[in-house]
Amino acid sequence: MTTITTTDPATGVRRTLDLEETDAAGLASAVSSATAATAELQALGRSGRARLLEAIADALDARREDIVATADAETALGAVRLNGELTRTGYQLRFFAEVLREGSYLEAVIDHAGDTPMGPRPDLRRMLVPIGPVAVYAASNFPLAFSVPGGDTAAALAAGAGVVVKAHPAHPATSALVASVIAEVTDPLVGRAVSVVYGYAAGIDLVQAPGIRAASFTGSPGGGRALAELAANRPSPIPFYGELGSINPVLVSPAAAAARGESIAEGLAASIVQGGGQFCTKPGIALVPVGPAGDALVGALSASVAHVGAKPALTAGMASAYDAGLDELTAVPGAALVSRGSASSTIGSTTPALVEFVGDELPTRLAEECFGPVAVVVRYRDDEHAARLASALPGTLTATLFIEPGDAGVPMARVAVAERAGRILYDQYPTGVAVAWAQNHGGPWPSTDSVHTSVGATSIRRYLRPVAWQNAPAAELPPELRDGPVDLPRRVDGVMVLP
Amino acid sequence: MTTITTTDPATGVRRTLDLEETDAAGLASAVSSATAATAELQALGRSGRARLLEAIADALDARREDIVATADAETALGAVRLNGELTRTGYQLRFFAEVLREGSYLEAVIDHAGDTPMGPRPDLRRMLVPIGPVAVYAASNFPLAFSVPGGDTAAALAAGAGVVVKAHPAHPATSALVASVIAEVTDPLVGRAVSVVYGYAAGIDLVQAPGIRAASFTGSPGGGRALAELAANRPSPIPFYGELGSINPVLVSPAAAAARGESIAEGLAASIVQGGGQFCTKPGIALVPVGPAGDALVGALSASVAHVGAKPALTAGMASAYDAGLDELTAVPGAALVSRGSASSTIGSTTPALVEFVGDELPTRLAEECFGPVAVVVRYRDDEHAARLASALPGTLTATLFIEPGDAGVPMARVAVAERAGRILYDQYPTGVAVAWAQNHGGPWPSTDSVHTSVGATSIRRYLRPVAWQNAPAAELPPELRDGPVDLPRRVDGVMVLP
Repeated sequence: MTTITTTDPATGVRRTLDLEETDAAGLASAVSSATAATAELQALGRSGRARLLEAIADALDARREDIVATADAETALGAVRLNGELTRTGYQLRFFAEVLREGSYLEAVIDHAGDTPMGPRPDLRRMLVPIGPVAVYAASNFPLAFSVPGGDTAAALAAGAGVVVKAHPAHPATSALVASVIAEVTDPLVGRAVSVVYGYAAGIDLVQAPGIRAASFTGSPGGGRALAELAANRPSPIPFYGELGSINPVLVSPAAAAARGESIAEGLAASIVQGGGQFCTKPGIALVPVGPAGDALVGALSASVAHVGAKPALTAGMASAYDAGLDELTAVPGAALVSRGSASSTIGSTTPALVEFVGDELPTRLAEECFGPVAVVVRYRDDEHAARLASALPGTLTATLFIEPGDAGVPMARVAVAERAGRILYDQYPTGVAVAWAQNHGGPWPSTDSVHTSVGATSIRRYLRPVAWQNAPAAELPPELRDGPVDLPRRVDGVMVLP
Repeated sequence: MTTITTTDPATGVRRTLDLEETDAAGLASAVSSATAATAELQALGRSGRARLLEAIADALDARREDIVATADAETALGAVRLNGELTRTGYQLRFFAEVLREGSYLEAVIDHAGDTPMGPRPDLRRMLVPIGPVAVYAASNFPLAFSVPGGDTAAALAAGAGVVVKAHPAHPATSALVASVIAEVTDPLVGRAVSVVYGYAAGIDLVQAPGIRAASFTGSPGGGRALAELAANRPSPIPFYGELGSINPVLVSPAAAAARGESIAEGLAASIVQGGGQFCTKPGIALVPVGPAGDALVGALSASVAHVGAKPALTAGMASAYDAGLDELTAVPGAALVSRGSASSTIGSTTPALVEFVGDELPTRLAEECFGPVAVVVRYRDDEHAARLASALPGTLTATLFIEPGDAGVPMARVAVAERAGRILYDQYPTGVAVAWAQNHGGPWPSTDSVHTSVGATSIRRYLRPVAWQNAPAAELPPELRDGPVDLPRRVDGVMVLP
């Protein structure tokens, strides 16, 4: 057995935890618990699961001080941010309780038997059911909200699926602590609904475990693609949902640059460096017009970035990768470092930076994410040039447009930026992903499946699959599909009916 | 260029068509047409696309005689079946027109800006948009309803996605004819919205074409898995939706066998041999109790099967594969041929057959589909035995239960059969898949993505992806997401609102 260690990024000090890497027997036990819990969660029903989610949120709140301190010692994200993240974590859990009680997410449909131009149609009733036990690969950059008690876990439990979380090695102590808090709530009711496994080997085995029926991942393109291939090469492949980073382009129209370039620059700088630039929605590239207004914007952006100090990265490896990435960006012909924040002597810190690129075509390296507090400003001459640059970008979680009221400028570039995004923002900044009914956090590749979101009410659909019942006796149907009044919206013979 | 030929399965006569295998330039042109049409289809709006679908259905009806004759000469399915299939094809197109007009499929959501426990939330609005140009791999066994003008094409056009169909080599003339009928409707309005490509190489290249954003396939596990891997290994992977066959288990409870074994046998025999057993929902395995009631059922089933004559298979290759598969089934220890229909001297015909298996564990080969008019009856001793046999089955499109009112028999076996299915039938037969709001045609692997269906209203979702607009000016929003009255159900600030 290999013992687990944790490192404080603010000091570099490593300590040994009372935890070990999960072996094959431990993984099998976790999958078996998740399988048993899937049946129990379903038996609880929607209202029972809603109460369970709320109880988990309450229990996490009750241990707020411990959790925040433990997470800060592993991530150096600071108490303010981590308190906010724990609040978000509880909000997500309570939001899914609301989604459960409302019930639309089941997509309940009843088609009574009847005649059609194709002849008689049987009685058909359709609803979504839990897909089965779910694997969740925790993210480094949200030790709570996208980790053990995070959005994927909340959505899976809401769906009625037991969960096995692969802990991120950057915050094992936090993972173990919140898992124990969750277990105190779940174990008496449904058994071990959320298990945590540790170590690289367990992560590789988890996505291939026969009992696992879907997997979610938030992390790097390399890691995500490797796990996606393992999922696809199983004897029985399963859905794999990965959020593999994002370039998050920002397009500033000439009119917007002229009208309020400096104010845009100020907000943009804050968005780039927020949380050490360690957000998947960090704006990584900004298309800014050439000419005096664009110059002023870039000047203001440079000045803002220069005023920000270095911060500890989540891990020393991520700090090294940032420095290497910055070297690569500035080595691209046509690219130059135009601003740098104030450095720190602390090993493992990242210093904000701004890179500017001038050229006809966007080099591939500039279209790839560099995780950390850096953005690339790309200057465009006209709409056609901006559209060509934008067309070299991959799919992206967000695209941000700064335009003026009635602004008809850069129409082709606006389309090119927007059509590759899962969320399109106007005059706001992409960091900060509200948990809401209307949220979408996904998009074309490198999100692995553009049809799904990992944040918001509809993220639950990743863990549900449809089933149709044909000519079923009422006793064989889920309560939501029986005739008579029900407590959820559903479609009956083609017509939406509210409760 | 290689010229395309077509063969009449009833006579074995092959003739040359005025068609060639599609080369790289032809494929590029088809993808380019689909891309242009995607923009045009979106510009038509929901009502415009609804009218387009209805016009295609009308045009196909107007050419009914030609289409049925052409398809019969390539498939030998007969005029009655092909007329029915063309009716189904038109019904699907008109059904999606209804889905478009109703509008729920867009999943429109508005969250106005407001305060939350996490602080202020921005204005967020979410809706589904076309995923982009779609590749459709046509099926052999439905030359119309799952081919060029079939369900995938109808759903994609409804979504607003241009389509490139890879024609199935078993019915190229039908594919070309219906494509020309569709083109007469679409070309003046939106350009070539449905292109057809021919030949193995074009099929390999199509799923890898950068312009294609999703692919659908109906066919064999081998072909489907190969295409799924190509889709996953693209520089930018895309969703791949495959229906790769199904075993469609039938479970007869002891009480049902005792009460009406002979009537069940009669219906089951008809379902096994219908259309030459060439349906993805053909019941491939039936779990029947040991003992006199089960014996009587198997006897009646054997007698029914023995009365059915051979029929031409869709292709000579499929007839050979059927014969080889039947040899494999009967070579399994514990399995025996118990009935055979009347043979035919026509090459390329398949003769109905019934195989019976007695044993403790289900051998792997018996859990795999054998395409054609054969089923395997597996005898079970008790609930535990039946559940163990059922647990050896893969995911399946359908599971059929014959039980009596209040029947508490074989509870574990019922769960084991039902939990691996996309559609659960009671006292009906799985062949025949109604096009309806509540239909589900999919399930766990070997359906490639258990979250989706390939038949029914929600099959459109395979070709849509969500987008969220944040803080967008009204003019930048799709009409369905603007404030004020709209013609579709949507969720506003968490509450479903009907038009």
